[in-house]
Amino acid sequence: MSYVNSMPRYEILSEDAMATLDKGWRRIVSELGVEFLLPEAVEYFRAAGQTVEGENLVKFDPEFILEQVAKAPREFDLQARNPAHTVHVGGDHMAFASVYGCPFVRVGDERRDATMDDFENLVRLSQAFPELDSPGGTICEPNDRPLDSRHLDMVYALQTLSDKPYMGSVTSGPNAADTIAMTEILFGGREAIERTPAVMGLINVNSPLRFDDRMLGALVEYTKANQPVIVTPFLLMGAMSPVSIPATLVQQMAEALAGIALTQLIRPGAPVVFGSFLSNTDMQSGSPSFGTPESAIGLLCTGQIARSFGLPFRSGGALNASQTVDAQAAYEALMTMLPTFLAGTNWVMHSAGWLEGGLVSCYEKFIVDIELLRMLKYEFTPLEIDEESLAFGAHEEVGAGGHFLGAMHTLERFRECFYRPLLSSTENFDRWTRNGGLDATARAANVWRETLEHYERPEIDEGVRAQLEEYVIRRRAELGD
Amino acid sequence: MSYVNSMPRYEILSEDAMATLDKGWRRIVSELGVEFLLPEAVEYFRAAGQTVEGENLVKFDPEFILEQVAKAPREFDLQARNPAHTVHVGGDHMAFASVYGCPFVRVGDERRDATMDDFENLVRLSQAFPELDSPGGTICEPNDRPLDSRHLDMVYALQTLSDKPYMGSVTSGPNAADTIAMTEILFGGREAIERTPAVMGLINVNSPLRFDDRMLGALVEYTKANQPVIVTPFLLMGAMSPVSIPATLVQQMAEALAGIALTQLIRPGAPVVFGSFLSNTDMQSGSPSFGTPESAIGLLCTGQIARSFGLPFRSGGALNASQTVDAQAAYEALMTMLPTFLAGTNWVMHSAGWLEGGLVSCYEKFIVDIELLRMLKYEFTPLEIDEESLAFGAHEEVGAGGHFLGAMHTLERFRECFYRPLLSSTENFDRWTRNGGLDATARAANVWRETLEHYERPEIDEGVRAQLEEYVIRRRAELGD
Repeated sequence: MSYVNSMPRYEILSEDAMATLDKGWRRIVSELGVEFLLPEAVEYFRAAGQTVEGENLVKFDPEFILEQVAKAPREFDLQARNPAHTVHVGGDHMAFASVYGCPFVRVGDERRDATMDDFENLVRLSQAFPELDSPGGTICEPNDRPLDSRHLDMVYALQTLSDKPYMGSVTSGPNAADTIAMTEILFGGREAIERTPAVMGLINVNSPLRFDDRMLGALVEYTKANQPVIVTPFLLMGAMSPVSIPATLVQQMAEALAGIALTQLIRPGAPVVFGSFLSNTDMQSGSPSFGTPESAIGLLCTGQIARSFGLPFRSGGALNASQTVDAQAAYEALMTMLPTFLAGTNWVMHSAGWLEGGLVSCYEKFIVDIELLRMLKYEFTPLEIDEESLAFGAHEEVGAGGHFLGAMHTLERFRECFYRPLLSSTENFDRWTRNGGLDATARAANVWRETLEHYERPEIDEGVRAQLEEYVIRRRAELGD
Repeated sequence: MSYVNSMPRYEILSEDAMATLDKGWRRIVSELGVEFLLPEAVEYFRAAGQTVEGENLVKFDPEFILEQVAKAPREFDLQARNPAHTVHVGGDHMAFASVYGCPFVRVGDERRDATMDDFENLVRLSQAFPELDSPGGTICEPNDRPLDSRHLDMVYALQTLSDKPYMGSVTSGPNAADTIAMTEILFGGREAIERTPAVMGLINVNSPLRFDDRMLGALVEYTKANQPVIVTPFLLMGAMSPVSIPATLVQQMAEALAGIALTQLIRPGAPVVFGSFLSNTDMQSGSPSFGTPESAIGLLCTGQIARSFGLPFRSGGALNASQTVDAQAAYEALMTMLPTFLAGTNWVMHSAGWLEGGLVSCYEKFIVDIELLRMLKYEFTPLEIDEESLAFGAHEEVGAGGHFLGAMHTLERFRECFYRPLLSSTENFDRWTRNGGLDATARAANVWRETLEHYERPEIDEGVRAQLEEYVIRRRAELGD
C-alpha cells in the first residue's frame, strides 16, 4: 500500500486569499467560459443546462460545477495486478510514478532518441525500486516503433515488466479504448476494473481554457469505464497563463474543475484527480523553467486548494531544466520534490528520471531521484518521542566528554538507527579518491546498471500474457503497422 | 537590514512531545550535570547556589537555568560598520553567514590547504553577494600564517575587505580579547560596541556535556563586553550524542541552556544565541553525514524548541558530505537549507561554500549556495493575492487557446515578474552545447571569477585602518610571530 504522509501540511494561503481565489475562478468560468473541442462533451454540458456559445464555448454556473465536483470520490484505490502494489489515491497517501512523456533519453554523456529498449529498461527500474508506486505511462517515447500502434507496445510492456499500477494512452479515444481493453484482459474483465479502477489517464488541458478533442476522447473513454483521469491544466506562466501566480491559480481551478465536472456528468462518482503542472517561462530565454520558487509556491497553494474541494490532487515531481545531471538538476528537483511532500501531493508524476525540462528521460537522474524519494519518505515520518527515545541510560553510560560510538545503546541500534543512503557518499577524500573519485552521477550509473542486472520480471499467468500479446498483434495489424 | 521570513513556521512537535523533551533536559542537567573546564565558570555557578562536584561538574536546578535564560534578550541588533548592513538577530529575521572553519579549499578540480589569499577572496565574495549578511569568521584556515597570530590577520581581513558584521576568534580568551579590542577600534570605542553589539562568537560545546577551557575563556570575554555568543552543542549522533533524535534534542537543550545560563550570570541581559549543529554519523563509514533526513528533522525541532525559550537560534546551512560539487552536494545542501527557511533560523552559518563535511571551503559551491539562498528568499515571501493579481484583464485579452507571451499584461511585467537565476540555465540543448556545454559547477567558476574581478573594497577611514594595522603588528610581535 502506498506511503502515508502523516506530517503536517504546510499551508500558506489565508482565508482571505482563498476567498479571493474563489471569486477568481468563478468569474473565469462564468464570464469567459471554457472551450471543449469535442461535440460529445459540449452536449453533456448543454443537456445539463449550461450556456453554450458557438460550437465549443461553455459558460458555467459555478454552483453547477461545484455540484458536479462534489460527486467525485475524495479517495479511491488504484489496483495493481500484484495486490501488494495496489495504491490508495487521496487523503494522506502519496503515490509516486516515474517520468512521463520524454522524446529523448540520456545515458551518461550520450543524449539520443528514446527507443522501445529504453522504455522497457525504465519500466524495469520502476518495478525494481520500492520507492516508486508506478512506472507511470509514457516513461519515454519508443521512437523506433510505429506511431499509430506504439501505445499497444507501451501498455504491454507496462503490464508485463511491472506488476504495479500504470497509466494508459491518452493520445485519442480509440487508444484509450485499447488501453482499457488490455486492462480488462489483465484484471479479468470489465466488471473487475469498474469495481476497482486499474489504470489512470493523464488528461492535459490545452491551456488556456481549452480542452482538445483527442484528450477529451480519452477522458470520455476512461471515465465511462470508471477509470480515473488526472485533469491537468498545463500552465507555464507567461505562455499558457498570465505572469502572476494568483491569476494562474484561478485559471488552474477554472480548467481543472470544469474538466472534473465533465467526468461527473459522464459518470457520477467516477474517480478523478485535480491535476497541476505549474511552472513559469524564463522570460530571458523564452524556455520553460522548473524547480523555480514560483513553481514551489504554486505547488503549496495547489495542495491547499485541491483539499478545499475534497479532491485528490496531482502535482510535483523531480522537475528541473538542467541539460545534465549536475548540481542544478539536483537542487531544482529537490526544490520541487520537498514542497511536494510539504503539500502532501496524492499522485506524483515525474518522480524519477526527469531531465532537461521533461525532454529527456535520464537513467542517472532516475537514481538521483530515487535517493531523494527515499530521504524524503524517511524525513516525513513523524518522530516518536517517548521516555525510551530519550535514551537517558545512554547518557548515564557515556557521561561528560565521552563517545557514543562504543556505547551499548549504540551497538544495539547501529544497523537501523539512521537513514542508509543508496547513492550518497560520506567517504573521506583519500578513500573516495582511491575508489576512483566518482561523483554522484557516475555512481548513479553503477546503481542503475546493477539494478537492471538483478531485475526479475514479475510472474504473470501465461494465458493472460498470451491474450495480451494476441490483442497487440491483432490491433497492430488493424492499425496498419 | 536582514531578511524577514514572514511565511509560516513548519512545526512538527506536539505539546506532548514538547513536554517529554522538557522532562528530558531537566533530568540531564540535574542528575548528570555539565562539566565546565574553566574555574571561573564553575565559580559563577557555585556562587549562584548550584551544586559543584569535583572541580568541574555542575549539577543544576532546572528552574535556576530557566531564570537565567529568561534574562537574555529575545532579539538584538548586530551592528555593521556600514549601517545599511546591520542585522537584526531574532524574531522573524534570518541572517546568513558564509562557511566557517575549513582547513582546505577546493577550486575546480584542485583541493589543497587553504591560504590567507583564499581567506581574503572568500571574504570578498561574501561582501559582494547581498544574499549574505556576514562573511562569518574563519571562512577558511589561513594555513600559511603563523598559528598564534593568524586570528589577527583574519579579523583584520574581515574588518577591511567587508563592511558587514563578522564573527570573531574563539580559540582562547586572549584571542577573543584581541577581536574585541580591534572591534572597539573599528566602531569607535568600548561604549559603542557595548551599546550595540558588533561581533559574534561561536562557542562550540565539547559534547557530550562538557565545555572546554579555551571556548569558555572566549565566552567570558565576549559576554563581559556584551557581544553575543552562539552556544552550540556539537552533535553528530552516534558520536557526541545517542543514536536517537529525541535523546539528542534533550542533550542539545541541556548543553545550550547551561551555557546560556552562564552568560546571564556573567552579564545579565547579554545577547546570546541558542546554537545547533546537529547531524548524524554514517554508521557504515563512521564519517559524519550532512543533509540527512535526521538533520532536517532535528533542525525543524530545534526552531520550535528555541522559540519556546524565547531565544534567537542558529542552525542550518548548505551542509553536505560530498567530495565534489555534484548532484549530492546540491541536494544535501538544499535538504538542509530548505528546512532552515521552514524553521525560520535566525542566524545561519555555513550558508555558502561548505563542502566535504566542512573540511573544504569551495569556490564553486559558494556560488551554488548563493543561488539556493536567492531562490529561497524569493520563495519564502508571502504571495500577495488581491484583485489586481488575478489579472482578469489578461485572461480577457488572450482568451481560450491563446498565448500570453505577447499579451499587454505580460509585456508590462516581463522584466520583474519572475525570479531571475544567477547560475541556473534554461538554455535548450543545442544552444547549451554550442555555448560549451558547461554544467552548473563550471558556470559557477565563471561567476565567482567575474565577481572577484568586479569586487570593490568598501571604503574605510584611513586613520582607523592604520590603527587596526598597528594593533595587528604590535600583537603579532608580542605573540612572537
